[in-house]
Amino acid sequence: MLSICLSSLLPADHAAAVRGLQSIFQEQEMTETVHDTEGHGYLATFVGKNGRFAVLRVHSHGLVTFDLQCSEGDDLAQVDNLLNALEKKLKTVLHGDIQRVKRLPVLRRGAEVDRYWPTADGRLVEYDIDEVVYEKDSPYQNIKIMHSRQFGNILILNGDVNLAESDLPYTHAIMGSGRERYAGKEVLILGGGDGGILCEVVKLKPKMITMLVIDGCRKHMRKTCGNVLDNLKGDCYEVLVQDCIPVLKKFGDEGRTFDYVINDLTAVPISTAPEEESTWEFLRHILDLSIKVLRPNGKYFTQGNCVNLTEALNEYEKLLGRLSCKVDFSKEVVCVPSYMELYPLK
Amino acid sequence: MLSICLSSLLPADHAAAVRGLQSIFQEQEMTETVHDTEGHGYLATFVGKNGRFAVLRVHSHGLVTFDLQCSEGDDLAQVDNLLNALEKKLKTVLHGDIQRVKRLPVLRRGAEVDRYWPTADGRLVEYDIDEVVYEKDSPYQNIKIMHSRQFGNILILNGDVNLAESDLPYTHAIMGSGRERYAGKEVLILGGGDGGILCEVVKLKPKMITMLVIDGCRKHMRKTCGNVLDNLKGDCYEVLVQDCIPVLKKFGDEGRTFDYVINDLTAVPISTAPEEESTWEFLRHILDLSIKVLRPNGKYFTQGNCVNLTEALNEYEKLLGRLSCKVDFSKEVVCVPSYMELYPLK
Repeated sequence: MLSICLSSLLPADHAAAVRGLQSIFQEQEMTETVHDTEGHGYLATFVGKNGRFAVLRVHSHGLVTFDLQCSEGDDLAQVDNLLNALEKKLKTVLHGDIQRVKRLPVLRRGAEVDRYWPTADGRLVEYDIDEVVYEKDSPYQNIKIMHSRQFGNILILNGDVNLAESDLPYTHAIMGSGRERYAGKEVLILGGGDGGILCEVVKLKPKMITMLVIDGCRKHMRKTCGNVLDNLKGDCYEVLVQDCIPVLKKFGDEGRTFDYVINDLTAVPISTAPEEESTWEFLRHILDLSIKVLRPNGKYFTQGNCVNLTEALNEYEKLLGRLSCKVDFSKEVVCVPSYMELYPLK
Repeated sequence: MLSICLSSLLPADHAAAVRGLQSIFQEQEMTETVHDTEGHGYLATFVGKNGRFAVLRVHSHGLVTFDLQCSEGDDLAQVDNLLNALEKKLKTVLHGDIQRVKRLPVLRRGAEVDRYWPTADGRLVEYDIDEVVYEKDSPYQNIKIMHSRQFGNILILNGDVNLAESDLPYTHAIMGSGRERYAGKEVLILGGGDGGILCEVVKLKPKMITMLVIDGCRKHMRKTCGNVLDNLKGDCYEVLVQDCIPVLKKFGDEGRTFDYVINDLTAVPISTAPEEESTWEFLRHILDLSIKVLRPNGKYFTQGNCVNLTEALNEYEKLLGRLSCKVDFSKEVVCVPSYMELYPLK
């Protein structure tokens, strides 16, 4: 995809530009169709060999766009040459009018390994993913583990990047950024199926960790969980592969309490729109049940979401003022390598 | 852009799918053109009101792609509804055949604020940029400062993200990650026009810092440089707005030496291809001149490039073995928030 911003509206010599390109398309044996846009600039499409297809537009507000599609099996050097020739020709013909030229990296569509995983605030990001390591539809969510050259294995839940093996800063922050003394304490971890929190808290010699999780990443996130998920029970921890809510309710009814509750279940929903209401409801419910099993002066840690989602993050803060008991809270923004966005943890 | 991967090659009922969509295009008063692909699947284009334009392809290897273009001033809710209707219809008709559906975030082309700045290893990344703060063509490079909601102001040199106000981890790492004692030392900084290194080293009470730079970011990168660039001379530093190479040569001829040389001029070129040779030449030259002004046991810090560029990084390491004197080196990989990729500093 090539975009050229012009300093004039429809440039006087755009017809010359278009004619200049036509010779290139003819050389490539591409068949041209000029479309009637009813006064919205010039629009032509070109169909070539091997399923190659191109769209050339000269928008009346002074923008020239050119898109070229080709198949994976096509001769990419040849396609690149065609693009280079077109870019050069356009630059020559439109020279005096050009403000800015932008050529985007190739977008790969329908590839076996999908590299495009948008950020929480909806921006397009291409990861350096080279392998699908694991994929499964659980009753709760779609689970993917994909390998990134720089971030290691990445856990992707329902299309959201959840945690990569590079993301110790996330685990570190949701444990309180090294300011907590876990030795001798009782800790409840909700979610955290990647095992990162469990693995790191175990090192700090707590009295007991209870972890409630629906599935684990034992095999494919070794750099995150070490061997801590190989057994569901250890000297100072127990992993219950169960649904959180009934167990939390039971703990509440039994009067069982903890020094720390670390909720790694779900991020703050990305919006406050009605379709997110069920997630907000779940989040409120978990928060309420968690506060009930927290000792006085106990601490509850959880993640927020991308700092750009200010409305949703404000809504979450309001929620904290409406709990069954009064709480103080603070927040911290950390850079989680694989998220490609800044992320506050609360 | 919508992509649908199918489990079969050209699906038996693709004609039904196409017919199903046609009614939607007709409702939208879009004019259809079916193109002859010479056996490379089905390809139709649609021209609608306000310059709307769509491409529907059913590739013979089992991929359906649909692209919709519209202008900035178009009714985006209406466009979104059209896309939703198409996606729903495609899902209904192709139901049994669908393996994977992917809809990419909107790509904005020719916008005044360009949000697409590819990573050093060529991946497409959309930043949360909302403002062009500063733009200038210097005799050396194109300088842009753009505002990102999460990273603060970002310095972009010749289209490469250089440093954002969020990127203290970069400055920290190129100073030796807190392991160096700068107190009482003489330090030479090459480049670093954002003022970040100068600002941080000054705090450590060195004897004298000399900085060679061609331009500064005094005004727009305040979170990075503080007020340190407001004056070109301070108690323990001097900024020389001059070309590096002649000054380095002069220092060498005069026998002037330093405890530390911090080279923040340029990253390792992204490839070892011939067109990068002049950058490699520059880099070798600077490295050579720098080593000459370094005291015995002095330290030289510089940046590498994205960890994925293994060939270029290896080439750089080889270079270190061919210097005028023997050197030891070590490297460290850090996560620089705004780079959206892991980056080794050497």
